[in-house]
Formats: sequence, structure tokens, C-alpha cells
Amino acid sequence: MSAASTIESIETTTEVSTGPGTAPGVREGAFGNARSLLCRECGHEVELGPSYACPECFGPLEVAYDFPAVTREEIEGGPRNIWRYKALLPVPTDIEESPNTEPGFTRLLEAGNLGRALGISKLWVKDDSTNPTNSFKDRVVACALSAARELDAKVFACPSTGNLANAVAAAGARAGMKTVVFIPSNLEKPKQVNSAVYTDSLVAVEGNYDDVNKLAQEIAAEEEGWAFVNVNVRPFYAEGSKTLGYEIAEQLGWRLPDQVVIPVASGSQLTKVHKAFQELIKLGLVEEKPYKIFGAQANGCSPVSTAYKAGVDAIRPVKPDTIAKSLAIGNPADGIYVLDIARETGGAVEDVTDDEVREGILLLARSEGVFTETAGGTTVAVTRKLVQTGQLDPEAETVIINTGMGLKTLDAVSDQVGPAATIKASYSAFVGTGIA
Amino acid sequence: MSAASTIESIETTTEVSTGPGTAPGVREGAFGNARSLLCRECGHEVELGPSYACPECFGPLEVAYDFPAVTREEIEGGPRNIWRYKALLPVPTDIEESPNTEPGFTRLLEAGNLGRALGISKLWVKDDSTNPTNSFKDRVVACALSAARELDAKVFACPSTGNLANAVAAAGARAGMKTVVFIPSNLEKPKQVNSAVYTDSLVAVEGNYDDVNKLAQEIAAEEEGWAFVNVNVRPFYAEGSKTLGYEIAEQLGWRLPDQVVIPVASGSQLTKVHKAFQELIKLGLVEEKPYKIFGAQANGCSPVSTAYKAGVDAIRPVKPDTIAKSLAIGNPADGIYVLDIARETGGAVEDVTDDEVREGILLLARSEGVFTETAGGTTVAVTRKLVQTGQLDPEAETVIINTGMGLKTLDAVSDQVGPAATIKASYSAFVGTGIA
Repeated sequence: MSAASTIESIETTTEVSTGPGTAPGVREGAFGNARSLLCRECGHEVELGPSYACPECFGPLEVAYDFPAVTREEIEGGPRNIWRYKALLPVPTDIEESPNTEPGFTRLLEAGNLGRALGISKLWVKDDSTNPTNSFKDRVVACALSAARELDAKVFACPSTGNLANAVAAAGARAGMKTVVFIPSNLEKPKQVNSAVYTDSLVAVEGNYDDVNKLAQEIAAEEEGWAFVNVNVRPFYAEGSKTLGYEIAEQLGWRLPDQVVIPVASGSQLTKVHKAFQELIKLGLVEEKPYKIFGAQANGCSPVSTAYKAGVDAIRPVKPDTIAKSLAIGNPADGIYVLDIARETGGAVEDVTDDEVREGILLLARSEGVFTETAGGTTVAVTRKLVQTGQLDPEAETVIINTGMGLKTLDAVSDQVGPAATIKASYSAFVGTGIA
Repeated sequence: MSAASTIESIETTTEVSTGPGTAPGVREGAFGNARSLLCRECGHEVELGPSYACPECFGPLEVAYDFPAVTREEIEGGPRNIWRYKALLPVPTDIEESPNTEPGFTRLLEAGNLGRALGISKLWVKDDSTNPTNSFKDRVVACALSAARELDAKVFACPSTGNLANAVAAAGARAGMKTVVFIPSNLEKPKQVNSAVYTDSLVAVEGNYDDVNKLAQEIAAEEEGWAFVNVNVRPFYAEGSKTLGYEIAEQLGWRLPDQVVIPVASGSQLTKVHKAFQELIKLGLVEEKPYKIFGAQANGCSPVSTAYKAGVDAIRPVKPDTIAKSLAIGNPADGIYVLDIARETGGAVEDVTDDEVREGILLLARSEGVFTETAGGTTVAVTRKLVQTGQLDPEAETVIINTGMGLKTLDAVSDQVGPAATIKASYSAFVGTGIA
């Protein structure tokens, strides 16, 4: 278990080889240039199919590729969504012709005001809040949907409390697939509505998210033809996060930034941005250069940050207690890989309090006009802390990722903001406020 | 007052002439290829500045242009936002270098599922819910912001109850301008938060929207240097809606659709999409062809639809009573021009009940995975009614515009949707639901 294994899985992907191929009954080309599912622990390869754990060692499986030559021009000539990178994803070459939500290619905003507030000389915000259902989950779900189609799944499903539920319900509706979304029954009504609007098969489960997740795994094991995006098609799903890395590089003019700050829930997004950067270097699409990757957590759920600071390799699971609910995974599956990447690239993993998360939300909104959810507030606040503690170089070009939209976590700031004044409807009353 | 005057104002814009130019103190090129502000009633021209009513006849002023030759390639080589059309907007040539929210170039989704549900053979949804603050208002506000900057305004402001407030507060924050947003004091708390998150100068006014609007007009008249986006820089602001028309044409492969359905509040958006199509034809960027433009209203605020059906030219103001609050303008400023365009192009203006609006929201969400606000629900429902009544040709290629995001009007559907089942966290309980 080391960074080396991660890198190796990328290196092998550019070699042309005859790999295990696709599972029986799956059409040729169903997964594009993907070659196999590769165990991140033992390197065992299995055929492309609905597998997620290594049959040899139970390690996590990741998509490996045989990439052909890919040029910037081919990518730039593609659609203005994640499918411009289809040659680098486990999807067929005609993917954009199947109904999907067409996510991605979101704004990369030069954030001068926020940079000045944080003391960073060159800062960018990659803003995924403008995706179809307002979070980065539309990227990963689009890749999972393609896999579900190619594997001839009859049901598209997930357990979730928020962004993922929205993304799955919307993508399933657009694809015309039967879609079932499992939520904890005590989820707030507005969050239920955000998903129920897209599907008549929302299932409320008595218990917490862990209970819902366990039920999903049981159904995935018992039922034929169910594609749970984050369970049995997870290897394909997770690849969608690579597009964040590709877009950052392309939107910077085909080059890598010096530093990236990424929120950590399962840790998958962070590892995939790193994988994307490595692939771009291997393919000659960007120049090789050193870059540092930083992880951001809320300290009510900071198992990775805790391990990073303690200098240990093992993640000790925690019981989450933070307003950053979309980051509240107490036992993050990719936590150990996050540690590896942060250490190997010279980055770090840091955490902040819930109050700092709220401050981060308001700082981003008031400096750049971007209303982020609690995960984004965490990233902004961690970035500030990284500068203050000397872990992040304020003179180096930095990109932070905003993963989602503040409209979905309004409660986090609703007690913090409001009218500066309440006045009668007259000019003299207005003058009296001193705002003029 | 006829369609002819609207068309004429477009025709004259492509002639090179020496017009009134810009107001004293405004830099050369501040408004790009714009030549003057032209009265839509009497044709009187005034210089480009913070004017919105004709000094001769009090008619509304509209931006007129001297367009140079513009090619598809120039546009396609521009940024992936509304500034790719900067040559056709009243903005300077370096507009993309000033901090702004970078709105536009949103998805044009081929909507096969919705088309089948409505009986329309070729249907597209232009989805403006993925703009930076989740509505088309980001387009118009970006143009207003440019005008405010060029006119050296010290305050960027608006009266609003919803989408416009969000867009102005966000754009002002990003631009680093002092921003003041006026809202009715009885506005629901979540809607206050959606704007207050961006600005510390939200002013709550006792009264309804009309009272807030009157106060804004008074402040605009009394105070120096205030740019109210929808009052004294309205002519520049309104031009932003043209970009919806440009994008539809470009995204269809540089051609016009046969039919477009557009929601009508003030009516400005509909008139500007028509203006955009006319400009594209004049500039040779698309082939000339007939197209029909349809307007959509909720029947709790349908003054334009009522006039259309009665076959009269005058709009009788109404007191709005509908859940489609973003369309609830009882005395729409551009209503008469909407009538002209609908009649002249062979379109129509239709209205639907609040229940039909709710059905429209759910139909779009469940067929295409797009969660729209009540205005979009109105447009979907009106489109269905237009087909059912034989006013819209189901065999002709049709585009409908989704102006904003359902997360902002959750209440409209929160009683309509919810879990299909609530179960214990066990596989057997799940099997019992019959969903498997």
C-alpha cells in the first residue's frame, strides 16, 4: 500500500497489451480504451464488468487503459462537456449520442479578490456548482450511467443523502432507465424533494446513512441487473472525477497548476485528479512539472487529516459530526491513497472547524460571487489555514475545487446573513440608513 | 406601435452611420459596436448613457448598433460564455478581462423523452438553470455590470424578489463593486439568504414588490452614480437576453429553429431572442427562414395572453396571483412588443393554471432530469397546451427555454413528491415493496 502502486497503475495504462478485456455478453468497445480492472493493492487484473473488489486480495479495483495517441486538437474539437475527454474514460466512442446530463466543462474562475483575501498571488476556483444538478457528482454519475447501460443493467440506483441522490435521479430520468434512490428516512424534506422531483422510486430507509449503504450492498448482491453507482459499478463511476483534472489543465492553457486544494470525503476525487494529471503528462498533453495536492476536511470528520498530522499510514475511522455532510464519511475508502499522494507531492491534509466552514462559504460568496455548499466552504477555509500555517506557498499558482452549490445547504449560513436594514418604502427612510 | 418599428430598429443597426455616440466622460469603445439608444416608439436617437426613456416621447430606449462584419469563426474562437458574442453586445472589446460571473453558453439538450410525452417530433430544451446563480438573469446582469462600470457608477443595485437579486448580488461581489439589493421585507427567509450570502447591503423594504420598485426609481433619480440594472441601465441590461437567441442558433449548428416557446414576465426576453435571430440573419450568420415565437404565461398573471386571445393591441394590467412568481409582472413593459412578434411570426401567447405549472415542472424533471423553477414549468405546460390546441406544429423543430433552477422554488412541488415507500433497513423489507 503505497503511492508507488497508484502511480504504477497509471504507468501501465499507456502500454499497449492484451488484457482481460470485457465480461461475456458485453459489446466490443463498451468501455472505450479501458483494458481491464486492476487491483490497486496486488496488481491482479480482471475483465471489465460489474466488479469492484479484487478476487485475489479484496483490494479496490481501478480502471486501467491502453491509451492510443490523443491530441489537444481532438479534445478541443469535442463537445463542451466531459465527453471531450471520452478517449480517456471507460466509455464508448459514441457516448455523447446516448441521452445523459452532459455535465462538466464548468467555469475555471480567476479569483483575484479571494486571492487577495487569502494572500495568494494567483488563485483559481474550479466551480462545479454549475453542473446540471449543481455538484461534481454529475460527472461520476454520467460515467456510471454509461457502464450501467453497457452492462445491460435494468435498474440504476444509489444510497445517498444529498448530491449523489440528485445526480442519479436526474441522470436516470434523462436516460429513461428505471432509477431507485435510497435515503435515510429522517432526511430533511427539502433534500427529499430535490431527488423525488426526478423519480417516483425514492425509498426512505429507517436508519442512518450507514444502514442505507449496507442495504444497498445487500440488494446489489442479491438482485440481478442492479447498477449501484457507488457500489458495483464504482470503478467506472470514480473515473468521472478525472475530468476535473483534465479541465483544470486544459482551461489553464494545457498546463498544470503548482498547487491544488481538494475536499476529501471518500478521497476518490483527490486521487482521480492526481491520476488525471499523471495521464496528461504520460500522453504528452501537458509538460511534466512538480505539483502539490492538498486535502481538505472538516474537523468533525477528519480521519485523513488526523492520520496525516500523526505521520501514520492507517486511517482510524471516526463517527462524523460536522455541518459538512457531503464530506462526512467516517471511514474513507481512498483515505490511504490520499495520504500517499499528499505526502509524495509535498502537499498536506488539513481540517477546519464548522465555524470556519461557514466563514469560508461567506468569504467565497462575497469575494467572487460563488455560493458554495459546506464542502466548498471547507476547502476555502482549509486553503486559508494552509497559507497561515506556511504549508501552502502563497506565491505559487493555486487551484481550489468548489464541488457544489450553496442552495443545497442553505441552513449552514441562514443564521449568519440577512438584511442590513428594514425600512419603510420611502426615500427619506432609505437616506436614514446611511447606505447611500 | 407595431412590429414594424421593432424590426426597423434592427434593420438600421447594420447600417454604418455617425450616430449620437457616447455621453460626455465615457471612454471611446465603452459600448463596443453600439451606436446610440434608439426610441422604439418615435425612432429618436440619444447618446449612449444612463438613459432609458425617450426625451421626446417617453418611449422605451433600445441599443442600436453599427455592426462590422462578424464571422462564425470569430465567435467560435471566443470564450465559452456570453462574451463570445461581444461584438453583438454593448460592451467593450476587452470585456472578458473585467471580473464578471462568465455566464451563458449553457446546455441545449435534445429532449427526446419530453418530445415523446408532448407529441413533438424534434424538441430541444435550452437550459439556463446551470448559469452561475442558476437563472438567465446572469446574462442580463453581466451586460448591466459592464454598463455600470463604463458609466463609472459607484453602486450596483436592483429591486427584486428572486433571481435578479441573486444575480446582481453575485456579480457585484465578483466585480468588487458596492452592491445594494432591495427586497420586500416579507420575502421568505431562504430567498433572503440566497442574496444576503453575497452582500452585506441587502435592504428589506416594508411593502410589496411594486413599493420596492418605486423606491428604486426614486433613488435612481435622486442619487448620483447608482446603476439600477433594471431601471437606469435597463437598455444595456436587456441586450443580454439576445445571447439566448445567439446560443440556440449556434448550438443548432448555425441555423434557426422553426418554433421557440419563451416565458413572458416583462416580455423583454422574448423580444430579444427575436432581435437576436434578426441580427444573425442580417449578418449572414444563419440562413433566413420563417420561425414562430410563442409566449408562455401563468393564468394568474396573463395580461399578454389575454390581449393576444382577445385580438387587441393594448395590455390591461392585472394583479398577479400565481405560484410562478418570477413571471408575476402585472403590467409588462414589453407586452405590446410580445403581441406584435407572436402575431407577426405566426406564433401565439398562451397561459396555464398553477396546477399545470406544477405538472410541467415534474414532467420536465422526470423526462429529462432537468429541475426547473415555476417559470420553466409554465413554459413546459404551455408547450403541451399549444400542441393540444393545434397552435404549435408538432412536426416542426421546437426549442423551449428553461430560465431557472427548481431549487429556488422548491415549495411549488414539495407537496407533490416524496418517497414511494418507507421501510426498515432490511432486504426482506425492500422486497416487500415490490420495487425490485
